[in-house]
Amino acid sequence: MVDCRIDPSWSLGYNVVIENGVTLGRNVRIGHNTVIFAGTVIADDVTIGCNSVVGCQPYQNSLVRNGVTGQGPLIIGEQSRIGNGVVLYSGTALGEGVLVADLASIRERVTIGNGTIIGRNAKIECRTAIGQRCVIQTGAYITADMVVEDDVFIGPEVSTSNDKYMSRAPYKLLGPRIRQGASIGNNATLLPGIVIGAKSVIGAGSVVTKDVPEYATVVGVPARVVNRADITAKED
Amino acid sequence: MVDCRIDPSWSLGYNVVIENGVTLGRNVRIGHNTVIFAGTVIADDVTIGCNSVVGCQPYQNSLVRNGVTGQGPLIIGEQSRIGNGVVLYSGTALGEGVLVADLASIRERVTIGNGTIIGRNAKIECRTAIGQRCVIQTGAYITADMVVEDDVFIGPEVSTSNDKYMSRAPYKLLGPRIRQGASIGNNATLLPGIVIGAKSVIGAGSVVTKDVPEYATVVGVPARVVNRADITAKED
Amino acid sequence: MVDCRIDPSWSLGYNVVIENGVTLGRNVRIGHNTVIFAGTVIADDVTIGCNSVVGCQPYQNSLVRNGVTGQGPLIIGEQSRIGNGVVLYSGTALGEGVLVADLASIRERVTIGNGTIIGRNAKIECRTAIGQRCVIQTGAYITADMVVEDDVFIGPEVSTSNDKYMSRAPYKLLGPRIRQGASIGNNATLLPGIVIGAKSVIGAGSVVTKDVPEYATVVGVPARVVNRADITAKED
Repeated sequence: MVDCRIDPSWSLGYNVVIENGVTLGRNVRIGHNTVIFAGTVIADDVTIGCNSVVGCQPYQNSLVRNGVTGQGPLIIGEQSRIGNGVVLYSGTALGEGVLVADLASIRERVTIGNGTIIGRNAKIECRTAIGQRCVIQTGAYITADMVVEDDVFIGPEVSTSNDKYMSRAPYKLLGPRIRQGASIGNNATLLPGIVIGAKSVIGAGSVVTKDVPEYATVVGVPARVVNRADITAKED
Repeated sequence: MVDCRIDPSWSLGYNVVIENGVTLGRNVRIGHNTVIFAGTVIADDVTIGCNSVVGCQPYQNSLVRNGVTGQGPLIIGEQSRIGNGVVLYSGTALGEGVLVADLASIRERVTIGNGTIIGRNAKIECRTAIGQRCVIQTGAYITADMVVEDDVFIGPEVSTSNDKYMSRAPYKLLGPRIRQGASIGNNATLLPGIVIGAKSVIGAGSVVTKDVPEYATVVGVPARVVNRADITAKED
Repeated sequence: MVDCRIDPSWSLGYNVVIENGVTLGRNVRIGHNTVIFAGTVIADDVTIGCNSVVGCQPYQNSLVRNGVTGQGPLIIGEQSRIGNGVVLYSGTALGEGVLVADLASIRERVTIGNGTIIGRNAKIECRTAIGQRCVIQTGAYITADMVVEDDVFIGPEVSTSNDKYMSRAPYKLLGPRIRQGASIGNNATLLPGIVIGAKSVIGAGSVVTKDVPEYATVVGVPARVVNRADITAKED
């Protein structure tokens, strides 16, 4: 199934499918029953678990407004680790030392910075940019057309959206922008197009309907500012 | 592994398991490592991704109150597209042009109308009916014994329930009924047995504890009406 | 792929990978494309679905603070049933008659009591103890370092957390403790370190920020007590 020589530094499980034109670096490990699609580029020292689908093509559908054809392959940077049951699309680039946990999925045209963690069952939609050293916790939903800057913490089961009119009317799809170092508590809900300020803190379960100032802490439904503080000063 | 002739119009990946008595139409494409269980009926021009489990039998358990034995096979209508890592049970019928995205699962005795999208990681429980042209977004949870009429939009991570007493007392399980054209914002919570009126709008993060009138917009915890408007008129 | 004799009581699907040193009891059934990792112990009458990953090793990462090396194998008790697309780690023990539904995942050093149900897409993090006869519903997120006592009901999409400072400052990670017989409504949000009292009821969509007394019912954001009652008395 592999139309290339097998490098002695690789460790491949049983029933692995590697399509034509895949580039594998040194010391790549791939678990049982995983599929690597044509053209995928995997750098040195990458580990991929079992039963994952790596580098598949996106699909078109008249109702999938975000559907785009991936241009270019999936690229996985050095020392990244991909879990079991993961689905990764072509046209996306993961940096170095990225962790994608079990059963997570990442669509096309996404970029993920070095050292970022994508938690288990997290879902990253297309055309979204995620910075370096972020933690996207278990089950979080990161919508399409969203920007997450560096050092952001997104808690478990956080939900975002990018469609103000929920398919009722034309609208330029725009996800939230989460600025550097912000922290979002578990199960918070973020509305389309808002800006979450740098180093702000969003309380667990909050529903954030408008922009949040930098360094602010907001909680509640709808979320309101409860104080402002230089969190980093406090931590010193 | 295939106890039938291979039609030249099919495209089958590596390690595909097709059990006995499966019916495949013309131009069916099945990705690597996918399993098609006995009796499944797949119409023309259907595409199925990799590592999916298609047409499996439901199971019984003394604590799984909803568990039922699937009667009849899984049926997948023409031009439908099933993603990667999907789990579909027997006794369920998908219409034509249905999209089931990656890592979604649909249990037994479910019907899904033509042109409906089931988002990635969405979970559809048993005995639920979903209409035509609906969008069930990523990660949404559609409980058992629920009715979703045509043209409904259910946002990402929406949660529903059908058990008023949470296993404490006997109760006829009954999920919400969502009427034609309603839109549910992301991460909203719907309680058992309520009716969401036609073309109503439920704000993101709302907790809906009682019936919502048609054309109403409700927000908050608990959700309250904020205005009434003929949304379709506004859009004209 | 199997370095042991095949017992006539087993039913193994196609493309099953069983690594060395696995112990299988009598009447074990394993579905197609499932992987059983080295050392796993599976008792009599266990059924495992297709495309599951059973007994894999945890991984370390500088940002994965909870990462630990599994000590000992995964153990699955008699008559347990594991679904399709499930991921189970080594160093974890499932009791007898446990059900783990499709696409659920359970990390290392977890214990699960007899007769408990782990719903589809539920995610159980490491070092957590779950009692007997619990129902952890579809999509629920059970964080690390958490205790769930016997007879607890956790509704669909419930979210928990164990990190008060969301990676901003050092903190002893501590999840909620849910005492015997408590019921948590769907999509509720639980903050770190709180205690949910015995037989209390948490309303759907509530955000629980502090301890809940036994037998209390709480609802809202933040959750407040709405009454106290001996639920069991009421049910008589």
